[in-house]
Amino acid sequence: MNKPLILITNDDGLHARGIKKLIDIAKPMGDVYVVAPDRPQSGMSHAITVATPLRLNKIKQEENLTIYTCSGTPVDSVKLALDKVVPRKPDIVLSGINHGMNSSVCVIYSGTMGAALEGAIERIPSIGFSVLTHSPDSDFDSSEKYVKLIIEKGLETGLPEGVCLNVNIPTITEPEIKGVKVCRQAKTYWSDEYLEHKDPHKRSYYWLTGVLINPDKETDTDEWALENNYISVVPVHSDLTAHEAIPVINKWRFDA
Amino acid sequence: MNKPLILITNDDGLHARGIKKLIDIAKPMGDVYVVAPDRPQSGMSHAITVATPLRLNKIKQEENLTIYTCSGTPVDSVKLALDKVVPRKPDIVLSGINHGMNSSVCVIYSGTMGAALEGAIERIPSIGFSVLTHSPDSDFDSSEKYVKLIIEKGLETGLPEGVCLNVNIPTITEPEIKGVKVCRQAKTYWSDEYLEHKDPHKRSYYWLTGVLINPDKETDTDEWALENNYISVVPVHSDLTAHEAIPVINKWRFDA
Repeated sequence: MNKPLILITNDDGLHARGIKKLIDIAKPMGDVYVVAPDRPQSGMSHAITVATPLRLNKIKQEENLTIYTCSGTPVDSVKLALDKVVPRKPDIVLSGINHGMNSSVCVIYSGTMGAALEGAIERIPSIGFSVLTHSPDSDFDSSEKYVKLIIEKGLETGLPEGVCLNVNIPTITEPEIKGVKVCRQAKTYWSDEYLEHKDPHKRSYYWLTGVLINPDKETDTDEWALENNYISVVPVHSDLTAHEAIPVINKWRFDA
Repeated sequence: MNKPLILITNDDGLHARGIKKLIDIAKPMGDVYVVAPDRPQSGMSHAITVATPLRLNKIKQEENLTIYTCSGTPVDSVKLALDKVVPRKPDIVLSGINHGMNSSVCVIYSGTMGAALEGAIERIPSIGFSVLTHSPDSDFDSSEKYVKLIIEKGLETGLPEGVCLNVNIPTITEPEIKGVKVCRQAKTYWSDEYLEHKDPHKRSYYWLTGVLINPDKETDTDEWALENNYISVVPVHSDLTAHEAIPVINKWRFDA
């Protein structure tokens, strides 16, 4: 029996600690191919590069581990890996471990989850992992046991077609983690405030800052799980249809 | 009574014909503020700029029409407009008219729809418009009547909270358009093929090309509507949860 083929990417770039941790966890489980952005790509969502070509750069090839950087986005990395790097369709696509939360509405802005969702669109079981701290020195050890377990389950069971998992891990020690909770995405939004600075020519430039607003207080959400020391797992798909709004819009009269 | 405040953006940049058409259509309906990317941003999805600051550049201010360019993505343009440009919360956010289809899975990659969805996340009725041709000389005249009608309905009726509309317009003459159809997003995916070229130093670079694959043959989809000469309208939201997959994943045993 062939070993599982595991494709790994992220959005913090190949030099981030999170992807090194993910590679270490995945290596004993199969043949690992890494195609990661050559520089940080946070906030790149599901962006693809259409107006310029892409480059691949082979960094390492050893037994069970092949590493490339890609000059594009996280989604570009998955697409290019599938067409040009892996010898066959991967058994699983892993993205992360991201330095920073990707729960609730953050999933929409996340390059980590863009890559995982691209795997799902390509009908490959895919999982994105994030820890709730932006620090480059994030401690990934406390979550290692759960990351390993979730990957094992993904390889063993697969996922419904077109579905990937958005896994967020609270920044607490392992004994404090109460377990894993399967959730829906909380209905949140960012209240943005751009900080205005002046350059030496007295012209303004603007830095994005913001606060996450969560009016969604139900207990079945990812935000609730994380606040209550659970690892949150949200199954995510690419169908953006607001199905419940179809009958509402159908009441509009369109006969011009 | 105040005139409606209309915020317009796109992903092809301020110099595209599509946004000029949208401005012309919207101008008689209210006070129009345009904040559009200063260069093409196709394929930017819901990307935001986090590692660099943004610039705003005022291009025009006349009665009922204020125009800025933004150095960021379509979503940046909406966020920055809401915080720094418009005098109050807009009554509607319009994005487009995009040169190229954004139906079915394309909605995920689309900067046009990223901007519209950002408006919806900010709880503003929002609509993205796209025509099914990439040509810079796209004929937007045949769709003008319907674009106007849909904006009027949006201003009059509003939209369910958190929902925006993804409007795609087939490239046929106005008499050939059979009407408007409210649809769900077809379950499609791209079969990618990267074309490999060599630079003068014999190093490879890769251009994204692909074919849209549509195994979803039901008649309630946007792809069906467009193939049958209807304008497709899909209500879109930011909840990526695959709700039907929650019980499936709940069967996984997570006790490590």
